[in-house]
Amino acid sequence: MTSVYIAIACGLLAVLYGFITSGQVLRQSAGETKMQDIASAIQEGASAYLARQYRTIGIVGIVVVVILAVTLGWLSTIGFVIGAVLSGVAGFVGMNISVRANVRTAEAARHSLQRGLTVAFRSGAVTGMLVAGLGLLAISVFFWYLVVPAGHAPDDREIIEALTALAFGASLISIFARLGGGIFTKAADVGADLVGKVEAGIPEDDPRNPATIADNVGDNVGDCAGMAADLFETYVVTLGLTMVSIALLMANSDYLLALMTLPLIVGGVCIVTSIIGTYMVRLGSSQSIMGALYKGFWTAAILAVPAIYLVTSYALGGDMNVPLDHNAFLGGGGASDNPFTGMDLFWAMMIGLGVTGALVWITEYYTGTQYRPVKSIAKASVTGHGTNVIQGLAISLESTALPTLVIVVAVIAAYQLAGIIGIAFAATAMLALAGMVIALDAYGPVTDNAGGIAEMAGLPEDVRGRTDALDAVGNTTKAVTKGYAIGSAALAALVLFGAYTTDLDRYSSALGLTEAVDFSLSNPYIIVGLLLGALLPYLFGAFGMTAVGRAAGSVVEDVRAQFGEDAGIMAGTSRPNYARTVDIVTKAAIKEMIIPSLLPVLSPVVVFFIVSWVAGRESGFAAVGAMLLGVIVSGLFVAISMTSGGGAWDNAKKYIEDGHHGGKGSEAHKAAVTGDTVGDPYKDTAGPAVNPMIKITNIVALLLLAALAAGGA
Amino acid sequence: MTSVYIAIACGLLAVLYGFITSGQVLRQSAGETKMQDIASAIQEGASAYLARQYRTIGIVGIVVVVILAVTLGWLSTIGFVIGAVLSGVAGFVGMNISVRANVRTAEAARHSLQRGLTVAFRSGAVTGMLVAGLGLLAISVFFWYLVVPAGHAPDDREIIEALTALAFGASLISIFARLGGGIFTKAADVGADLVGKVEAGIPEDDPRNPATIADNVGDNVGDCAGMAADLFETYVVTLGLTMVSIALLMANSDYLLALMTLPLIVGGVCIVTSIIGTYMVRLGSSQSIMGALYKGFWTAAILAVPAIYLVTSYALGGDMNVPLDHNAFLGGGGASDNPFTGMDLFWAMMIGLGVTGALVWITEYYTGTQYRPVKSIAKASVTGHGTNVIQGLAISLESTALPTLVIVVAVIAAYQLAGIIGIAFAATAMLALAGMVIALDAYGPVTDNAGGIAEMAGLPEDVRGRTDALDAVGNTTKAVTKGYAIGSAALAALVLFGAYTTDLDRYSSALGLTEAVDFSLSNPYIIVGLLLGALLPYLFGAFGMTAVGRAAGSVVEDVRAQFGEDAGIMAGTSRPNYARTVDIVTKAAIKEMIIPSLLPVLSPVVVFFIVSWVAGRESGFAAVGAMLLGVIVSGLFVAISMTSGGGAWDNAKKYIEDGHHGGKGSEAHKAAVTGDTVGDPYKDTAGPAVNPMIKITNIVALLLLAALAAGGA
Repeated sequence: MTSVYIAIACGLLAVLYGFITSGQVLRQSAGETKMQDIASAIQEGASAYLARQYRTIGIVGIVVVVILAVTLGWLSTIGFVIGAVLSGVAGFVGMNISVRANVRTAEAARHSLQRGLTVAFRSGAVTGMLVAGLGLLAISVFFWYLVVPAGHAPDDREIIEALTALAFGASLISIFARLGGGIFTKAADVGADLVGKVEAGIPEDDPRNPATIADNVGDNVGDCAGMAADLFETYVVTLGLTMVSIALLMANSDYLLALMTLPLIVGGVCIVTSIIGTYMVRLGSSQSIMGALYKGFWTAAILAVPAIYLVTSYALGGDMNVPLDHNAFLGGGGASDNPFTGMDLFWAMMIGLGVTGALVWITEYYTGTQYRPVKSIAKASVTGHGTNVIQGLAISLESTALPTLVIVVAVIAAYQLAGIIGIAFAATAMLALAGMVIALDAYGPVTDNAGGIAEMAGLPEDVRGRTDALDAVGNTTKAVTKGYAIGSAALAALVLFGAYTTDLDRYSSALGLTEAVDFSLSNPYIIVGLLLGALLPYLFGAFGMTAVGRAAGSVVEDVRAQFGEDAGIMAGTSRPNYARTVDIVTKAAIKEMIIPSLLPVLSPVVVFFIVSWVAGRESGFAAVGAMLLGVIVSGLFVAISMTSGGGAWDNAKKYIEDGHHGGKGSEAHKAAVTGDTVGDPYKDTAGPAVNPMIKITNIVALLLLAALAAGGA
Repeated sequence: MTSVYIAIACGLLAVLYGFITSGQVLRQSAGETKMQDIASAIQEGASAYLARQYRTIGIVGIVVVVILAVTLGWLSTIGFVIGAVLSGVAGFVGMNISVRANVRTAEAARHSLQRGLTVAFRSGAVTGMLVAGLGLLAISVFFWYLVVPAGHAPDDREIIEALTALAFGASLISIFARLGGGIFTKAADVGADLVGKVEAGIPEDDPRNPATIADNVGDNVGDCAGMAADLFETYVVTLGLTMVSIALLMANSDYLLALMTLPLIVGGVCIVTSIIGTYMVRLGSSQSIMGALYKGFWTAAILAVPAIYLVTSYALGGDMNVPLDHNAFLGGGGASDNPFTGMDLFWAMMIGLGVTGALVWITEYYTGTQYRPVKSIAKASVTGHGTNVIQGLAISLESTALPTLVIVVAVIAAYQLAGIIGIAFAATAMLALAGMVIALDAYGPVTDNAGGIAEMAGLPEDVRGRTDALDAVGNTTKAVTKGYAIGSAALAALVLFGAYTTDLDRYSSALGLTEAVDFSLSNPYIIVGLLLGALLPYLFGAFGMTAVGRAAGSVVEDVRAQFGEDAGIMAGTSRPNYARTVDIVTKAAIKEMIIPSLLPVLSPVVVFFIVSWVAGRESGFAAVGAMLLGVIVSGLFVAISMTSGGGAWDNAKKYIEDGHHGGKGSEAHKAAVTGDTVGDPYKDTAGPAVNPMIKITNIVALLLLAALAAGGA
C-alpha cells in the first residue's frame, strides 16, 4: 500500500499548491473600484447560478442515492456521494478562483502581457491541480479505506462496485454541470450578441447591454466550473475503471495490488511534473503566448517519461521484465499465451503520452490562426455567410480524421503490448497530465472575462489588445482539452466495454443467463444496439443546440424589455438590471439541462428492458453492450467535429479582426461573426458534453448489471 | 424459371411505358422561341457534362475491368460491364427526358397548375420506370443467361460472383455520377447566387447572370442524372444481393430457385402497381400538389400488398405455410430451429413497405413547410444568420432519431420472422416501389428548371408562381428519396455483412485462415474497424463540401470576369457566355469527384492489408468486416441529417418567401438564404452520395474476399 500513500501525498501536494498559488493570485491588485464592482457582479451571478444548479442536481442525486442504497448497499452509496460531492467541489473551486482572477488579470494586463499571462495562467493552474489532486485523493483514500480499515481484498465485488459508483457520482454531476453551464454560457453569449451587436449596434461587452454580465458569468460557470467538473469526471473514471479492469481481469495474479495501485502512483508523480511545468510558463523573446504555454506543457510531459518509468519499476519490485500473469483475457488468444511485462506497460503509457501530444498538435492545427483550416474559413467569409458556414462545416467534418487515426494506432499498439490492460494504462497516462491540461484550459475563460472587464470599465485600448491576444490562444487551448477528453474517452470506452463483458461472464448465473451473450457483429441485436448508441450523441446534440436557441431567445426578450422600460440605459445614464438577466438565463439553463442529461442515464435501462422483453435477456445484454460502443463510435466524431469546428470558426473571426480580408466591420467580418455564433453552441454546449455522456451510458450499464445480479433476477 | 420470364416481361413493360409516356411529354408544346433557346442551351450543357463525366469514369472503369478479368474471370467482368453501362444509361435517360420536359412544363404552367404538374410528373415517371425496368431487366436477363444457356446451378460460385460484380458496376458508376453531379449542381447554384444575388443584386435565374444556365444544367446532371444512377444502383444492389444471400444461406433448400427468383417477380409486379399509380396523380379540389403525388404513391403501395402476396404464393407453389429450410444461419440459434414460411416472408416484405411509408411521412414532417421543424428554422431566421444555422443544425441532428427507430424496429421484426433472409426481403420490398419513388423525385428538377426558364424568358408572374408551388413540393420529394435510399441501405448493409461473413466461412481454407475470424465486439480490431468505417462518411462529407466551395469559387471568378469584360451584360444588351461558365463548372466538378469517389473503393483494401500485416490475416478480415458496419452506423446519421436538414433549410426559405416573418427581402429572408446555401451541399452533394459510398465499401470487401480466395493466397 506504499504506492497509495505516495499517491495521497501527491494529492495533498496538489491541494497545497492550489492554496499557495491562489494566495499569490489573490494578493494581486484588483484594480480600481469600477473594475471591482463589475467583478463582484460577475461573482454574485456565478455563485447564484452554481448554487441553484447544485440544488437541482441535488434532487436528482438524492433519488440516485436511494436507488443505489436499495440495490447495491451502503459502500456503493458512499462511493457515489464522494464522487458527486467532489465533482461539485471541483467545479465550485474552479469558478471561485476564476471569478477573482479575471479582474486581477485585467489589472495586470495594464502593466504587461507577461503579468497578465502569469495571473491568468496561475489561476488556471489552481483549478488544474485541485481537480487532479481531489480526483487522486478521492480514489486513493477511498481505496485505502476499503482495503485497510474495511479489510476487503483488492478484487472484492464490493471494491469493484464502490469504485464504479464513485465514477458514476462524478459523471452524473459532470454531465449536468457541463450541459447546464454550456447552455448558460452560450445562451448569454448568443443572446447578448444578437440584441447588443446586431440589434442595438453596440460593441461586445458594452456596459449598456443588460446581458453583458450574464455573458461573463457564463465563461465562469460553463468554461470553468463545467469544464472542471467534466475533467474531474474524466480523471476519476479513467483511473478508477483502470483499477476495476485490473481487478476483474487479473484477480489471481501475484501483482494484483501492485498493478491496481500503479495508476494512482502514476497520477501522483505526474501531478509533481505538472507543478514543475507550471513554473516554466514564461514568455520568451518571441512574445509567443502559445509558446509560453507549450513550455509548461512539454516540461510536464517530458518529465513524466522518466517519472513513469521509475514508479512502474518501483511498483513491480524493480524488475521491469518479469511476466505479469493474468487469469482472463478479452478477445481470446493473443496475450494469454504471451503475458506482458512492466516494460510493456511502460510503453503503453508512453503511447498514452504520445496520443496526448498528438491530439494537442492536431487541435492546434485545426484551430490555430496560422494554419490552413482557420485561414480557409476566413477566406470563405469573403463570399458571405453561407460560404463561411459551408467551409466551417467542411473543416468540422475533416477535423475528425487525424484524431481517429491516432486513436486507432494507439489502440492497436497498446493492445499488442498488453491487451485491454495496455489500453487502460494508455488512457491512465493520458489523464495523468490532466492537471497541466486543465491549467491551459481554465486560463481561457479568465482572459475572456478580463477582456470583458477591461471593456466595461473603459480601460485603455492597449489593455484590451493584450487581453484579446491572451484570449485568442484560449480558444485553441479550450479546444485542446475537449479533444483530449474525448480522445481519452475513446480509450476508456474500450476498457469500460471490457469490464461490461467480464462482469456479464461473472454474473452469468446470478443473471439467469442460459447461454453466452453473443457479441458477434452478425447478431442483429448488436446492430440494433450500435444504431441506438450512435443515435444518442445526435439526439443529445440536437437537444443542446435547441436549448441554447430557446434560452438565448429569453435573453433577447429581457434585454429588449429593459431597453424599452428605461431609455436611460442606452443613453448611458441608468445602470441596466444585470441581475435580472442573469436570473433569467439561470432559470432557463437549469430547466433545459434536465431532460438531455437524463437521456444517457435512462437509455441503457430502457433498451435493456425492451429488447429483453422482445427477444430474451441475452439479446437485451447484447444490445446494451453494442449500444456502449455505438455511443463512442458516433460520439467521438460528433464531439471532435463540434469542438474543433467551433474553435476554428471562433479563431477565423479573430483572424479577420486582426486585419485580414478587410478586418473588423467588413462584410467578411460579419460573415465570420455568423460562423462564430454557429460554432458557439457546437464547441461549448453540445460537443463537450458528449464526453461525460459517453461515460454515463457505460457506467449505468455496469451498475445495471450489478443491480440485476444483486437482485438475483 | 417462369418467375424470371414474368420479371423480364414486367421490365419490358416498364421500358414500353417509358417510351409511350416520353412520347406524350415530347408532344407537348415547347413554347416560344426564347424559351426553346434557353432550353437548348441547358440541353447542350447537360449533354456536354455527361459526356465528359462518362469519359472520365470510363477510364476508371477500364482499369477495374482489367483487374476483374485477371482476378475473377470473364463472367464477373461481363456482370460489371452490364451494371456499369446500364447505370450510365439510367442517368443518361433521366437527364435526357428532364431537359426536354422542363420547357414544356413551363409552357404547360401558363395554362394551369394541373397541366404543369402532369407534364413534370410524367417526365419523372419516365425516369422512374426506366430505372426500375432497366434494373430488373439487367438482373433477370443476366441471371437467366447464367442459369439457362450457361447451365450454372443457381448457387454456383460463378453466379454469386457475377451478380456481385454486376452490383459493383452499378455502384461504381453511381458514386461518381452522384458526387460529380452533386458538385456540379451545387457549385453552379452557390456560385450563381453568390455573384448574382449577393454581389450584383440581380434575382435568381436572371438571364444576365452568366452562371444561370450552369445552375439549370446542374439540376439535370445532379438531381436527375446523378439521382437516377444512384437509385439504379440501390435497386440492383438490393435485389442482386438478396439473391446472393439466398444462394449463400439456403443452397441445400428445395426452394432455392423459387426463393432466388422471388425478388425478381416482386420487383416485376410492383412495377405494374407503380405504373397504375402514376395515372392516379391528379390535383383534387383542394389543389394540394403533395396530395396529388401521394395519391399515386399510395395507390402503388396499397396495390403492392395483394400483388406481393399473390406472387409469393405463386413462387412457393401455392402453400404459404410450408417450412422453408436453409442450411446455415447467421447469428446462431433462433431460426434454424424454427424454419420460416412463405407467410413469414410476406410479412417481412410488408415491413419493408411499412418502412417506406414511415420514412416518407417522417421526411415530409421534417421538410414540409406546415410542420414544426421548418417553421422553427424560419422563426430562428428572424434573429439572424447565426440562429438560422444553429436551429437548422439542431433539426439536422434531431431528424435522425425517428428514421433510426423505424429501422431498428424493422430489423428486429424482420429478423424475428425470417432472420437475415427476412431483412433482405424487407429491403427488396422497399426497393420494389423504386419506380414510383424515383418518379416523385425526378419531377423536382424538372419543375426547378421550369421556374428558371419562366424567369429567364420573362413569362408572366403567375407562371413563376405555379412553378414555384410545384418546386416547393419537389424539395420534400427529393428529401424523401434520399431518406428512402439510405434507409434501404441500412437494411442492405446487414445483408451484405451477412454475405461477407458467410463468404469468409466458405473460403476459409482457400484464404489460409487457421482460426475462425473473431467478430466479437471485444476484439479490438473490431473497434478499429468500426472507427475507421465511421470515419469514412465524415471524410467523404468533408471532401464533398470543400469541393463545392472550391468549384463555386471558380464560378464566381468567371462571372466577375465576364461582367468586367463586357459591361453590356449587366445592361442587358449583350448575351453572357453561358457555355464558358458551364465548361468551367464541368471541369471543376469532374476534377473534384475523383479522389472522394476512390476513398470507399480503396479503404477496405488498404485497411485489410495494413491490419493483416500488423496482426495477421484473421484480424485483417475482422477489421474490414467491422468497417462495413462502421460505415453504415455512422453513414446513416450523416446522410439523414444532411438530407433532411438541407431540405428543411430550403423550405424554411420558401416559407418566408410565402410572406411569413416579413417575406422576401426582409432580414429574416436574408438569414434564410444563408441557411439554404449551407443546406445545398449538405442535401445535394455530400448527403446523398453517402448511400452509394456505403454500398461500394461493402461490395469491394466481398470482391476482395473472392479475389484473395481465387488467388488461393
